[in-house]
Amino acid sequence: MNKSQLFQQICKKKSFLCVGLDTDINKIPTHLHQEKDPIFEFNKQIIDATSDYCVAYKPNTAFYEAMGAAGWESLQKTLDYIPKDIFTIADAKRGDIGNTSGLYARAFFEKMSFDAITVSPYMGSDSVKPFLGYPSKWVILLALTSNAGSADFQLQETGNDQLYERVLKESSKWADQESLMYVVGATNTSYIKNIRNLIPDYFLLVPGVGAQGGDLKAIAKEGMNQQCGLLVNASRSIIYAGNGVDFAKEAELEAKKLQSEMARYLEEFLPG
Amino acid sequence: MNKSQLFQQICKKKSFLCVGLDTDINKIPTHLHQEKDPIFEFNKQIIDATSDYCVAYKPNTAFYEAMGAAGWESLQKTLDYIPKDIFTIADAKRGDIGNTSGLYARAFFEKMSFDAITVSPYMGSDSVKPFLGYPSKWVILLALTSNAGSADFQLQETGNDQLYERVLKESSKWADQESLMYVVGATNTSYIKNIRNLIPDYFLLVPGVGAQGGDLKAIAKEGMNQQCGLLVNASRSIIYAGNGVDFAKEAELEAKKLQSEMARYLEEFLPG
Repeated sequence: MNKSQLFQQICKKKSFLCVGLDTDINKIPTHLHQEKDPIFEFNKQIIDATSDYCVAYKPNTAFYEAMGAAGWESLQKTLDYIPKDIFTIADAKRGDIGNTSGLYARAFFEKMSFDAITVSPYMGSDSVKPFLGYPSKWVILLALTSNAGSADFQLQETGNDQLYERVLKESSKWADQESLMYVVGATNTSYIKNIRNLIPDYFLLVPGVGAQGGDLKAIAKEGMNQQCGLLVNASRSIIYAGNGVDFAKEAELEAKKLQSEMARYLEEFLPG
Repeated sequence: MNKSQLFQQICKKKSFLCVGLDTDINKIPTHLHQEKDPIFEFNKQIIDATSDYCVAYKPNTAFYEAMGAAGWESLQKTLDYIPKDIFTIADAKRGDIGNTSGLYARAFFEKMSFDAITVSPYMGSDSVKPFLGYPSKWVILLALTSNAGSADFQLQETGNDQLYERVLKESSKWADQESLMYVVGATNTSYIKNIRNLIPDYFLLVPGVGAQGGDLKAIAKEGMNQQCGLLVNASRSIIYAGNGVDFAKEAELEAKKLQSEMARYLEEFLPG
């Protein structure tokens, strides 16, 4: 999916919501445990209930790897089940030396057919570039994450910049806003204005709304650009909204609530 | 495996060789393609041929993920096949927010039973700590990698340190040398002396010897400590030494050659 198609979906659904499919076998309703593939069954019902309200799904690979090979089957089935007009992100935070990053790209863009993968910048340009150059596929590079540990290195001064600023400035030379986005944690909304100044045209994937407590209005106000430029992710607050047989209905209500809020902010803050 | 057990193996085998099982379906001998699980069959023969000469095996997960769920089966079978007195490293370069890193730890230390996993430091302490605290299990943190892109961020000045130095100083407060090691690229042997001064007691995993051109003698001279403190990895130069039906024999000869060299350096450089 390319950038203008993504923006079309945002306008059509009046939503820039990404639902994080962080599906933990220990947290899903117990009545699903009798299913042949409880993880997929859970995801299927969540997707059916939320797909009208979101423009992206983001399974975090850790939750599937924790189930071994069977988890990868569940992930593949989940990806196949997601409607084709919804953007798909493998939240995998990969990155390795060049030829090896190329294999990760093969895994997520060819073997599976994700639209995007999250990548760690620590190993530098040649660890990221093998993921670029797939038409209509995306790298979403970690810049400033939503966890407390982001202060350990990302916020350290390096020259005149903090490390995350250097990552933005340097990596935005590697690819334009048609194939590169950035992860920017919502718990750091005070930084979003600065980041938007540095990279006005790139999409930001903003996790940390919901269970992690980020402020959606502030993100929309500071982060929105001409083509929205935001995908705001909520995981636990949606998918674990309920824990009974009606869990999918509870998830739908939660997704719908966020979408309604986003519709207002699109009206209020989208330039033009 | 704990540190003293690892050192015992090094002394017994007179080797600090780690063999990287970067097994690519497109590079293994064609006669193996008729096997039910060509990747596992290749690894099995490589392990049989090299296990007398190495103390560790390091499959890079990218090569297995590129095969989808079947690749994870091959990885699990490979891990199960490795003799129990050999150290096993999942070269996975993972790292995520706390609860998610905990799931990666579950994947690699519980679902599979690796001794160690490589982890990226970019997200800071709370992304690394969930991997620590498993008895006799190890985090191997990326410090200075062997690729050209390491210059983009790892070698940038931050305060009085380069970023990789800050990573070493900061992270060595999180865990001692009984559960934490570091990745230090062999193509940067000039840095190994400095790194050894900063963290005298920690083991270093040194990739980049062989196909990537690192200098084994210089690494041993600058990097060896009282308990050796080095695992030197070679991947392609061993596992793809030959490409015919006798590929395992060629791999054995290559591993044996490196082990003989290491035996000399242990005699020459091991303190005491």
